[in-house]
Amino acid sequence: MDYGSSLHGLLRAEAGLAWTAYVEHAFVRGLEDGTLPRASFLHYLQQDYVYLIHYTRAWALAAAKSTDIDEMREFAGAALALIDGEMQLHIETCEAVGISKVALAATREEPENLAYTRFVMDAGQRGDLLELLAALIPCALGYGEIGARLMAATEGKRENRPYKDWIETYGGEDYQGFAQSAASRFQQVAERTLGTDFKASPRWQRVSDTFTTACRLETAFWSMGLRGEMHPDFCV
Amino acid sequence: MDYGSSLHGLLRAEAGLAWTAYVEHAFVRGLEDGTLPRASFLHYLQQDYVYLIHYTRAWALAAAKSTDIDEMREFAGAALALIDGEMQLHIETCEAVGISKVALAATREEPENLAYTRFVMDAGQRGDLLELLAALIPCALGYGEIGARLMAATEGKRENRPYKDWIETYGGEDYQGFAQSAASRFQQVAERTLGTDFKASPRWQRVSDTFTTACRLETAFWSMGLRGEMHPDFCV
Amino acid sequence: MDYGSSLHGLLRAEAGLAWTAYVEHAFVRGLEDGTLPRASFLHYLQQDYVYLIHYTRAWALAAAKSTDIDEMREFAGAALALIDGEMQLHIETCEAVGISKVALAATREEPENLAYTRFVMDAGQRGDLLELLAALIPCALGYGEIGARLMAATEGKRENRPYKDWIETYGGEDYQGFAQSAASRFQQVAERTLGTDFKASPRWQRVSDTFTTACRLETAFWSMGLRGEMHPDFCV
Amino acid sequence: MDYGSSLHGLLRAEAGLAWTAYVEHAFVRGLEDGTLPRASFLHYLQQDYVYLIHYTRAWALAAAKSTDIDEMREFAGAALALIDGEMQLHIETCEAVGISKVALAATREEPENLAYTRFVMDAGQRGDLLELLAALIPCALGYGEIGARLMAATEGKRENRPYKDWIETYGGEDYQGFAQSAASRFQQVAERTLGTDFKASPRWQRVSDTFTTACRLETAFWSMGLRGEMHPDFCV
Repeated sequence: MDYGSSLHGLLRAEAGLAWTAYVEHAFVRGLEDGTLPRASFLHYLQQDYVYLIHYTRAWALAAAKSTDIDEMREFAGAALALIDGEMQLHIETCEAVGISKVALAATREEPENLAYTRFVMDAGQRGDLLELLAALIPCALGYGEIGARLMAATEGKRENRPYKDWIETYGGEDYQGFAQSAASRFQQVAERTLGTDFKASPRWQRVSDTFTTACRLETAFWSMGLRGEMHPDFCV
Repeated sequence: MDYGSSLHGLLRAEAGLAWTAYVEHAFVRGLEDGTLPRASFLHYLQQDYVYLIHYTRAWALAAAKSTDIDEMREFAGAALALIDGEMQLHIETCEAVGISKVALAATREEPENLAYTRFVMDAGQRGDLLELLAALIPCALGYGEIGARLMAATEGKRENRPYKDWIETYGGEDYQGFAQSAASRFQQVAERTLGTDFKASPRWQRVSDTFTTACRLETAFWSMGLRGEMHPDFCV
Repeated sequence: MDYGSSLHGLLRAEAGLAWTAYVEHAFVRGLEDGTLPRASFLHYLQQDYVYLIHYTRAWALAAAKSTDIDEMREFAGAALALIDGEMQLHIETCEAVGISKVALAATREEPENLAYTRFVMDAGQRGDLLELLAALIPCALGYGEIGARLMAATEGKRENRPYKDWIETYGGEDYQGFAQSAASRFQQVAERTLGTDFKASPRWQRVSDTFTTACRLETAFWSMGLRGEMHPDFCV
Repeated sequence: MDYGSSLHGLLRAEAGLAWTAYVEHAFVRGLEDGTLPRASFLHYLQQDYVYLIHYTRAWALAAAKSTDIDEMREFAGAALALIDGEMQLHIETCEAVGISKVALAATREEPENLAYTRFVMDAGQRGDLLELLAALIPCALGYGEIGARLMAATEGKRENRPYKDWIETYGGEDYQGFAQSAASRFQQVAERTLGTDFKASPRWQRVSDTFTTACRLETAFWSMGLRGEMHPDFCV
């Protein structure tokens, strides 16, 4: 795929290895071939549930920072879709192994989780809508890319694999549509904020830094999942 | 109806004449008996369209300030319902008299409009979720009360009245359900923030002041509608 | 003075009559020649005290939205200077006519006051630092311009005039320095956000609208002062 | 010292080992006896410089969330004091080893740093002033406690120790005064928000969780310092 001319294509290129490290993390390879230890997956999934609460807050914040009703509908709709779609995977998978919805919501956040979600929220509170979207978008696009890749790679052999549901959630039509439409909206907001020659804007470096930092935070989030247990300083 | 023990019953009682002045404003009587000049109604409606954009932002902000997914679903849902429900009345009514959706969105805000919407947003940004809801709720409940009252009062004689659609929007099931559920949620957030003995909380006075100020801003909004034309200082 | 090439020169030009209506308001002429009724002045001054509380909040918010320590020092310093400088004029003038500091802080805000301060705060919360400064700057620059003009116009004849202190506060070195340095900082933030060809930025219209709306809100604030008494809908 | 009845005494008690792990971290012991590797100290100091930028933003946010001018003066004053006091230690120490002020400001933030500062900012944006202070206060009080302890422990033998300046900054009168006055203000805000029987408030658990999470984030920050090099996922 050639992302060259699109905003996210440019940002991906600037992120360079920070993007690759994120979308090709060992955790992701383990999801693909099913070798990821169950404990790692469950640790990740519980943290990700709380992550999604804050990620939903961030989409709601996007709606609160807009005054265009089509945009607001999309952002508020994304918030609802996260709650009623994506988070259900987490609730059901966890329930199946005896972790209740209440226990999920009470999960103690790992520092890598706090770092990522609060970075996004603060980017949004401090900056404008574009800054918020630059922090939000690596999650939507990266999971979209990973989902699509794992869907294709496991075609015809998913049935007996342990992370089938995860792959089908992010590789499925709903999520792919969400990621695509988030990318279009991001492009549109950037055009009306920076103009179409993104890299000529004096804000470009900052937008790019925000995007790249979010990629690094994604990578650290996967690593936290692989660790499979709470950061020692968070156990007391 | 006896609101005595409920939070909004207490707040209404404290607001006293500020509440009455709001829900029994001459503008409202004109809606009921159809004597409200069309120019006043249209001026109000255009301003109210922009009001609703910011009111929707405020519900989205409520979702961004919560971490409870049921609450977040309700708040994000309210935002969507405002866009897809209430605002359609404005769009259709205005289109029927030749005011396009684009023109509506470009409406210059009256100072009374700015005062109200930005007061709500700032209450929400400065304070916690309870403070935001205290600023948001007089609109939901007051319009609910007015809608129900006008619905009953015009029973059997609405057909030939000019403000039938307005009355049926706010007196209708959808809006009544929204107002009721907003009141319950407000009560619930207040209980977990202040405890159940609301008036014993040191925050009570402030919550009450926020509610009362919002009532006064509603009254001034109706008066702005009656004026039927832009504030002179906003014409330049 | 020729502001032509500066950011505020461009914004002033775009604001056009909205700027003139603000800096040449009847209230200002009454301050200059001393014909402004005392009741109007005191009504204005009490409202302005509460205005300044929120204006100070806005400068503090600017510091919270920055990450450049020189900028943060200037913004936090402006907040302190408002509290320890400008607001003292209000406290002392009011105390002299029997309005205590406690009474001042408890002043019920007029809708024109709410409109202005909350518009500024929300512009700052919704947008980035530039958006906040665009809403903040008309007050600093307009009062600076008025102060300098009235200072010159009343040269040698201020002693027996009733609004001498007001004129000397805003026409004095401290305030003039504050206004000038706010203008430079605004220019600098705009350059790093929009580039130096301000009007070529797709954000230009919005920045200009924010500036112009703030001018109109200033005008309405003077008119509120002239009215000399509370908006009728705010008396209940 | 007996903190029993004060708000921070109660919160410290609830934090339990999370407080102890923070104030008695190996990094702190290394500061005291001078055994902390220089690389660890410098890594910490550079990160802490960026930390302080955001910590200053948080105090500015506190001023923006208040409407009491004495409180606002104190919060804006704290922001200024951090810039002109504490941060100078970092600038001078780093300059002495060839790290310029510009390089300092460009420091790539560690995930542990992002986690802490953005957690504080988001607590403040999402919640009210009390919530913000609950997130802000563990840093002020913990550094105050450590500074006083190390000052006493190194009495008469600091001269030849490598971390003399650090100890004298946090153990010195200025910082001790800042910590004490922050504690009083926190207590005061809590009393007017929760009432004086803190633990009876339904908000108590949340305030306590915020405080304890900030303590854990402090501990992880020290550990990041000890690591002495960038988190591997942040090196790409």
